[in-house]
Amino acid sequence: MRPSGRTLEQMRPIFIETGVTKHAEGSCLIRCGDTHVLCTATIEDKAPSFLKGSGLGWVTAEYGMLPRATNTRNRREAAAGKQSGRTQEIQRLIGRALRAGVDRVALGERQIVVDCDVIQADGGTRCASITGGWVALRLAVNKLLKAGAVTSDPIVDHVAAVSCGIYAGQPVLDLDYAEDSEAGTDGNFILTGRKRLIEVQMSAEGATFSREEMTKLLDLAEAGVADLVEAQKAAVA
Amino acid sequence: MRPSGRTLEQMRPIFIETGVTKHAEGSCLIRCGDTHVLCTATIEDKAPSFLKGSGLGWVTAEYGMLPRATNTRNRREAAAGKQSGRTQEIQRLIGRALRAGVDRVALGERQIVVDCDVIQADGGTRCASITGGWVALRLAVNKLLKAGAVTSDPIVDHVAAVSCGIYAGQPVLDLDYAEDSEAGTDGNFILTGRKRLIEVQMSAEGATFSREEMTKLLDLAEAGVADLVEAQKAAVA
Amino acid sequence: MRPSGRTLEQMRPIFIETGVTKHAEGSCLIRCGDTHVLCTATIEDKAPSFLKGSGLGWVTAEYGMLPRATNTRNRREAAAGKQSGRTQEIQRLIGRALRAGVDRVALGERQIVVDCDVIQADGGTRCASITGGWVALRLAVNKLLKAGAVTSDPIVDHVAAVSCGIYAGQPVLDLDYAEDSEAGTDGNFILTGRKRLIEVQMSAEGATFSREEMTKLLDLAEAGVADLVEAQKAAVA
Amino acid sequence: MRPSGRTLEQMRPIFIETGVTKHAEGSCLIRCGDTHVLCTATIEDKAPSFLKGSGLGWVTAEYGMLPRATNTRNRREAAAGKQSGRTQEIQRLIGRALRAGVDRVALGERQIVVDCDVIQADGGTRCASITGGWVALRLAVNKLLKAGAVTSDPIVDHVAAVSCGIYAGQPVLDLDYAEDSEAGTDGNFILTGRKRLIEVQMSAEGATFSREEMTKLLDLAEAGVADLVEAQKAAVA
Amino acid sequence: MRPSGRTLEQMRPIFIETGVTKHAEGSCLIRCGDTHVLCTATIEDKAPSFLKGSGLGWVTAEYGMLPRATNTRNRREAAAGKQSGRTQEIQRLIGRALRAGVDRVALGERQIVVDCDVIQADGGTRCASITGGWVALRLAVNKLLKAGAVTSDPIVDHVAAVSCGIYAGQPVLDLDYAEDSEAGTDGNFILTGRKRLIEVQMSAEGATFSREEMTKLLDLAEAGVADLVEAQKAAVA
Amino acid sequence: MRPSGRTLEQMRPIFIETGVTKHAEGSCLIRCGDTHVLCTATIEDKAPSFLKGSGLGWVTAEYGMLPRATNTRNRREAAAGKQSGRTQEIQRLIGRALRAGVDRVALGERQIVVDCDVIQADGGTRCASITGGWVALRLAVNKLLKAGAVTSDPIVDHVAAVSCGIYAGQPVLDLDYAEDSEAGTDGNFILTGRKRLIEVQMSAEGATFSREEMTKLLDLAEAGVADLVEAQKAAVA
Repeated sequence: MRPSGRTLEQMRPIFIETGVTKHAEGSCLIRCGDTHVLCTATIEDKAPSFLKGSGLGWVTAEYGMLPRATNTRNRREAAAGKQSGRTQEIQRLIGRALRAGVDRVALGERQIVVDCDVIQADGGTRCASITGGWVALRLAVNKLLKAGAVTSDPIVDHVAAVSCGIYAGQPVLDLDYAEDSEAGTDGNFILTGRKRLIEVQMSAEGATFSREEMTKLLDLAEAGVADLVEAQKAAVA
Repeated sequence: MRPSGRTLEQMRPIFIETGVTKHAEGSCLIRCGDTHVLCTATIEDKAPSFLKGSGLGWVTAEYGMLPRATNTRNRREAAAGKQSGRTQEIQRLIGRALRAGVDRVALGERQIVVDCDVIQADGGTRCASITGGWVALRLAVNKLLKAGAVTSDPIVDHVAAVSCGIYAGQPVLDLDYAEDSEAGTDGNFILTGRKRLIEVQMSAEGATFSREEMTKLLDLAEAGVADLVEAQKAAVA
Repeated sequence: MRPSGRTLEQMRPIFIETGVTKHAEGSCLIRCGDTHVLCTATIEDKAPSFLKGSGLGWVTAEYGMLPRATNTRNRREAAAGKQSGRTQEIQRLIGRALRAGVDRVALGERQIVVDCDVIQADGGTRCASITGGWVALRLAVNKLLKAGAVTSDPIVDHVAAVSCGIYAGQPVLDLDYAEDSEAGTDGNFILTGRKRLIEVQMSAEGATFSREEMTKLLDLAEAGVADLVEAQKAAVA
Repeated sequence: MRPSGRTLEQMRPIFIETGVTKHAEGSCLIRCGDTHVLCTATIEDKAPSFLKGSGLGWVTAEYGMLPRATNTRNRREAAAGKQSGRTQEIQRLIGRALRAGVDRVALGERQIVVDCDVIQADGGTRCASITGGWVALRLAVNKLLKAGAVTSDPIVDHVAAVSCGIYAGQPVLDLDYAEDSEAGTDGNFILTGRKRLIEVQMSAEGATFSREEMTKLLDLAEAGVADLVEAQKAAVA
Repeated sequence: MRPSGRTLEQMRPIFIETGVTKHAEGSCLIRCGDTHVLCTATIEDKAPSFLKGSGLGWVTAEYGMLPRATNTRNRREAAAGKQSGRTQEIQRLIGRALRAGVDRVALGERQIVVDCDVIQADGGTRCASITGGWVALRLAVNKLLKAGAVTSDPIVDHVAAVSCGIYAGQPVLDLDYAEDSEAGTDGNFILTGRKRLIEVQMSAEGATFSREEMTKLLDLAEAGVADLVEAQKAAVA
Repeated sequence: MRPSGRTLEQMRPIFIETGVTKHAEGSCLIRCGDTHVLCTATIEDKAPSFLKGSGLGWVTAEYGMLPRATNTRNRREAAAGKQSGRTQEIQRLIGRALRAGVDRVALGERQIVVDCDVIQADGGTRCASITGGWVALRLAVNKLLKAGAVTSDPIVDHVAAVSCGIYAGQPVLDLDYAEDSEAGTDGNFILTGRKRLIEVQMSAEGATFSREEMTKLLDLAEAGVADLVEAQKAAVA
């Protein structure tokens, strides 16, 4: 019944390749089915000015999509002269999510910038960005640990995300574009490796949903994130 | 234990004054405690170009905050030359929420723009904007009905929103600014008059939360929205 | 003969309500007939950089209009990405006018920002902004005096403004929108409480005027400003 | 007593050279002392969209200043990414002034754009722009008349402008930069060839002025504009 | 003597992988040593408006660099709100170069947009973009031919580019970043498959060069482009 | 055969008038036929921040074109809100060219900004800007030398530029607009007084060229630049 032939609770295949760019302190290419995101983490010695003297670190994210990552070409945001509301909303979400998995005292007064650039899109780009962004962040922090720049590990847990939705009346896990564009209700679920919730965003466009449906989607998401965390572990091993 | 002395499940006083500006097709000033938002609805004969020929209507929203609505003055976005990511995220949310309560076929190929301008802020401005924005929308649609421009009512249900969060370890309803700035977890809950969910946004900054906590906040939100819907009914009566 | 039924030299009713927002150091809502402007004054400890070390203070103003303050909705300037030439011209005028009533040495090296946001427009918004802006400024300065931050009063006189014009061949006082949009010649007159002139801006669009007409309009303006100063005195008493 | 040694009522030397650029329909270089402005008039077949079908023409103006027209270099507005409030205010003024001398019915549904670019500045650039802009406009309209594109002359009178102010306690005509930067009160006066007033802008920064002073400045301005009109006549003869 | 150990006339290894994104009409990832560029070609049914009715087609290009493609992170242009002068200069060059190899009559009134996004940079990104961009363009045009949308091949020849420069006093082929940042003189050479010149850009920063040096660099470039054309042939075979 | 009647190797008449604006440290109006560019040089005590503490100076350039410098009016870049890619490309070129003739150690840690504003355009504006810009720079540096601010002359040689192209199948020198808009191949050649090359930019739009043609254009350019250098010498004598 799903366009891809997957079962209701079946994730797309997940591949995470690390070390894909020679310059970044941490990097990976994450592929969740046909959604491919290049994630890099950059360590900056200075924290943002609002943290000056606080001893606290910061993790922030930027998100972009190559113009032809999608089925029809999107206008390049740099040419348009501004990031869309959607882009800004997504990159704020990624940053918030990653910070929830970080001990900012242990990180010390520095900043890590995670760039998530969508090479190819097929739904779920913000979730793939969070899951892959965590891998890039983990690898960059490993460098800090190895260099003795931080002494205790600032990463307190995995952070991963998956989308779920009501498609053709059924709760399904890990929506691809064909499903996402049809789903009346969908949500993004960000969890830690210990299954604690970081962010839940459920939204209906032109429809509404019940608490029972919400519960079912949360169940699916918990299972999906467990798979993603396994993939993260394998990637950074 | 709450800074305001309210009980855990106590809303702030709600006042909705309608007809506050002579030009708009629908308008209200909503006051949720010290959060005051002026909401106006403008009927435009033309729908956005992506709907041309579809027969479908559109409801959209814009959000702004006067520079001194807050404790320290914020830079005026018009002077800064762009709307912040936060502003864009909020106005996209308001628009999505209001559309969920509208039958876009019945509305016909026109657009209603709901402007929500925060006169004074004390937490919960996006929720107050949604609740007050619905009242302005309802009043504008009443004009369309009265004029015979639409024949069946495009408004299918009330839409209202409230924030809840974990403050000092306790789930509390309707966060004010003092609570919001301290809460590790908080969420915005948008529901219909029939208690169907439209959007749930729960988020932790520097913390995580459990499914049990989420359930408790949803219980609080359901009760809070019921009060808001009563206030809406009284206002548009 | 005037659309409103007023006599040629009759002002619209003036109401000034102070203390309308809890955050600002000074605030008022001024209503000149159907023109309603919310004015707030914010005290900033730092003067602009061009005054660094001069010992002189600064008063500046920003002006905005809510999108639906007018009969048809105007595009939100924050969304448009810039302030219009008209907006910039008006806010420069307000700032200049208020500074003319201030002893910048007595104010000391700090800045007061006066925000004038038009809630509802019916002609004369810049004049109402100046008159109401002065009240907000007066109240903010009172706080400085009470706190002992300034020792002699930096406010040297009232500042108030009114528009006049040639409507249907007759000189009339305090133009409303219906008159303003028809008047071939109109002007804004800014005076002090002692009837000294601060700024005179007379302008003809598609017409010209004589020195005699100019004299008559000045006579009207002097009388109108006297009424406004009385209203200011009552408001800040 | 004036820095330049001029008498109180003495204008700077005025030179207007026409036909200074081969492309424009009308052009001149106006020199008022050390203030030099290049003015060009461009005829466009289409009127602005708000006049479509009205049969009315439009005259508009744009103003710019070369970065090193002034004593210290100003940032290029094109590089800054926007026109300053001052620039917009000036170009709106020039456009309004020139339109006051034009019969827009006779002009027909077309637009004339007058560009005023300051090559060298020494005070009074907006006045020189208006006076020189009128010459460029006159020459462009002459082309329309010669080509039979308009049948009756759309130019109804000369338009010229001069600044006056209170310098060192004395009313003086045609302020140069040294005077302008010291004058507590100054004004721009735009008149027709028949001495009708088009626009009067008197303004005090950090001071106030009396009606008597205003009268004296108007007397000076009338005399100064008469000289400018003579120079215009000679230039377009 | 070269940092990479290459001989003076030795190119970096070239790999061109085609079909790297499922959405674009043509795509490749070109790797010239450590410079990696993703090139996609998008076919648009409409030509730019300045070609309306001309029967001529258009090829244009856009260029971007991921923030961490370089050794230190560059600010994202979309976040900065504009494309740098360097970016605009490069994308204009790519577009011009590709158009030189296209018969715009045979292409018909449509547009092909070539996006070149630098994934990893090590010098020569504009040359790699041209060489890879041609491959993407070739593949997209193949689709047009296969679909019968064009009847004769609009591609008239290969287009490829290489940089050369004077490094440590010696003319060297295919500069990498270590060389490029030290070279006093360098140039970009764009040639066709038949060794005709399309564009030559030689430039000295803080030095000058002789016609003899120019001749030597041209000799190197001819040989280098021949290698690139072979790689293109293999890729599109 | 040339539209202007010139021979193939004939330059347009060159006039360079110095001291054309009283404020700039160096200035000239250069006229190459009907192309007229006003060039000013401004000395700034501070070098750009990236040179702080280096002891090195900087020369940079900005380029602009008055809206009606061309046959049809161009949109004012300040009004458009950004400099076009073409403008940025040109001003980067001018700056690079002028720096090639400067000893940045001898200049010391200061900046000279050369503004080139096109008053009237007839092809070759970037070349005229370089040739005239050098004159303005030379005059400004003379002031530094005279004032003893620099002790050895930072100007190491003349810098001048000319365009050449293949017009109607023939190599021609110093293209005017009528030729430039028809030429399939053209180039800009920047040389020193000693005939060393600084920059060569040859480009074909919709055509290609041979090395033989390139050689012929270089021969023409060498001769043309020699004439320009003579004109520079006369101007600054």
